[in-house]
Amino acid sequence: MRIEEMTKPELEAWGLELKKEYESYKAKNLKLNMARGKPSDTQLDLSVGMLNILNGDYIASDGTDVRNYGLLEGIPEARELFADILGTTADNVIIGGNSSLNIMFDTVSRAMFNGVLPGSTPWIKQGEIKFVCPAPGYDRHFTICEYFGIEMIKVDMLSDGPDMDQVESLVVADAAIKGIWCVPMYSNPDGITYSDAVVSRLAGMKTAAPDFRIFWDNAYCLHHLDKNDKAKLLNIYDVCKEMGNEDRVYMFSSTSKVTFPGAGISAIAASSANIAHTKNQLASQTISYNKIDQMAHCKFLRDIHGVNAHMEKHAVILKPKFDAVASILSKELADLGCASWTNPKGGYFISLNTLDGCAKRVVQLCKEVGVVLTGAGATYPYGKDPRDRNIRIAPSFPPLAELVMAMELLCLCVKMASVEKFLAG
Amino acid sequence: MRIEEMTKPELEAWGLELKKEYESYKAKNLKLNMARGKPSDTQLDLSVGMLNILNGDYIASDGTDVRNYGLLEGIPEARELFADILGTTADNVIIGGNSSLNIMFDTVSRAMFNGVLPGSTPWIKQGEIKFVCPAPGYDRHFTICEYFGIEMIKVDMLSDGPDMDQVESLVVADAAIKGIWCVPMYSNPDGITYSDAVVSRLAGMKTAAPDFRIFWDNAYCLHHLDKNDKAKLLNIYDVCKEMGNEDRVYMFSSTSKVTFPGAGISAIAASSANIAHTKNQLASQTISYNKIDQMAHCKFLRDIHGVNAHMEKHAVILKPKFDAVASILSKELADLGCASWTNPKGGYFISLNTLDGCAKRVVQLCKEVGVVLTGAGATYPYGKDPRDRNIRIAPSFPPLAELVMAMELLCLCVKMASVEKFLAG
Repeated sequence: MRIEEMTKPELEAWGLELKKEYESYKAKNLKLNMARGKPSDTQLDLSVGMLNILNGDYIASDGTDVRNYGLLEGIPEARELFADILGTTADNVIIGGNSSLNIMFDTVSRAMFNGVLPGSTPWIKQGEIKFVCPAPGYDRHFTICEYFGIEMIKVDMLSDGPDMDQVESLVVADAAIKGIWCVPMYSNPDGITYSDAVVSRLAGMKTAAPDFRIFWDNAYCLHHLDKNDKAKLLNIYDVCKEMGNEDRVYMFSSTSKVTFPGAGISAIAASSANIAHTKNQLASQTISYNKIDQMAHCKFLRDIHGVNAHMEKHAVILKPKFDAVASILSKELADLGCASWTNPKGGYFISLNTLDGCAKRVVQLCKEVGVVLTGAGATYPYGKDPRDRNIRIAPSFPPLAELVMAMELLCLCVKMASVEKFLAG
Repeated sequence: MRIEEMTKPELEAWGLELKKEYESYKAKNLKLNMARGKPSDTQLDLSVGMLNILNGDYIASDGTDVRNYGLLEGIPEARELFADILGTTADNVIIGGNSSLNIMFDTVSRAMFNGVLPGSTPWIKQGEIKFVCPAPGYDRHFTICEYFGIEMIKVDMLSDGPDMDQVESLVVADAAIKGIWCVPMYSNPDGITYSDAVVSRLAGMKTAAPDFRIFWDNAYCLHHLDKNDKAKLLNIYDVCKEMGNEDRVYMFSSTSKVTFPGAGISAIAASSANIAHTKNQLASQTISYNKIDQMAHCKFLRDIHGVNAHMEKHAVILKPKFDAVASILSKELADLGCASWTNPKGGYFISLNTLDGCAKRVVQLCKEVGVVLTGAGATYPYGKDPRDRNIRIAPSFPPLAELVMAMELLCLCVKMASVEKFLAG
């Protein structure tokens, strides 16, 4: 029976039943966590072979001793590996440290202080600066904007990417809009992959700002759940180039969820002009990144085929977890009309939308029964979900048995909050 | 015979002789490099045992799996190790990535955008910003100032640190002066260690700017050439605290020249208020630094005693090189009156001062005969040595035999440039 069809007495009776079940769980003092997209221990174990793989060989393919200073742009084999991952050439890649988030932060910072290309006016000298933020999205992108005082303009995520009608009408009209955050494949938190039409429109759209940049956070481009059912993403750099907008996009990726979240390597890829300017600025920031980690990654993963084979091992661990989430949501909530959710083919997250105005309450109810979720609202700029309905589910970290229990509790809390809403309204 | 006592014919004859010797070297097509402070391969070999030391143990002392996300401030044992290195407590330390230069850059960047403490006005909102730069100094400090458009005010280095009369009169008078760069122990390039009086005056001096900060780059605090003849440095943080200026100093160090230049770990230490503000800002920049590297360092170096023992192995390799430089300079140049130099007890550099106006010419002559030196002027703000006399010698990287040849050539070039100067003048 759908919840909106229930009578008040039916709702009250059901509410009492749910409350009783909830209290019985409370007594168990559970500690379950579905808050952050952390790989599980079993996934981390897949890469421990990398830690002693160098075995006395410290010389990169160009003869550089990776233990010493030098090669700001990274060792050639790491640049080649990421060129293959991101669909570009090694010359268009700079390898960073253990965090692509950090490269993104630094890329915004460089644009603020020095402009996007030689001769460009620094963003800090252009008054108010704004970014388009498709939402729900990745909270840490929004945090970077808040750090730099960049105004965020929310744009809706549709089933094939950001609402491009909104995006186009914004960027063509306002030269203060300097960028857009995109997680184009298996997006955080919806798991959506941008359609070819969306990618083409992003690459070709008219922007009032000549120094507009797309921050293309391709964090999950390798993270398919089923090797026979992979989403496909158009190469935005190629399309930008065709459209005469070669300098428009910065692409980012990392091995944080390929090898180790705390000890992977990261990359930025872009046009030759962008890369030259970036490298020039980077020379003020550091002498070189960790090339021992770069070489260990290259020896361990070998090439794009090695990466794909390695990712299939992750999928074997992750897919049952995503399947469990989908199956529990479907079993518990499908017939009630009080929630909808995504069924991603990859990535790290599932997006759950409650009835309007229920997300905060669900997260609170979960917390009180020992299930930690990402804070409601975190997936929106300024932490404010205008409909208070989006909850990000991160199924990767808990063992399967814990995940199942956490999901059942989450569904229970969704039902409770929905009943409360109907009884109050 | 001192060069100023030579007659013109004597100078001309000697000049021809030097030229002949120079040409004979030129024919050899040498490739010698004394440009950067890079450890030698033999030194790098001292730390290769660190690369497979984890051996299946990935759990830090607080139970954190170092392979996964988390612990932005670093693992407890790494914070303790750097607390001992820098003479403070673990709570006052944040561990960074592979580059203390990068932490310094970021620390300046954070002050520019967000101010030094909660409620402080960001430096970018205070108009023109200036730093005091003791010179000769470290070129990459000056590069950071240039990057952020911070005006550099040169102050002379004396035999016991910066000229404090100059420093005090500058900082008390001008609230736009927000910082000073210091390499307080075995300074780059002079190898000078600041006296207790200099440290106390820095800690206690009146500054017009309430948000003035000392950038205390203690890169060489562990780098003694002789364990029985170590320089001693006062703990500036303790003195600042005594003087009621606890928040005045940021201390930096790293293991770049302890383990691997490309793959060490770094640290910032400061007052609790500074560290809390730094950590708060850092949360926008990254999720966490590489904790696998941190743990490997802690297992390999163990504690401060382990670090000191390890540094003695470096000294065994480095001391003969520093001795060779001192002995060749003394043998070739002592009686001529055309150069002076430092004899550091530690660190990575020796400072050579030619006659005024000769440094650029010496570096050029060296280059043409195959000896690469740090560019003349690099040790001064804006790359401009007002007397054009300072040359930084970095003896660590070349094998001893090459170093000896490079030094003999350098001395030859100093003589040639000096003769040219006297003949022209």
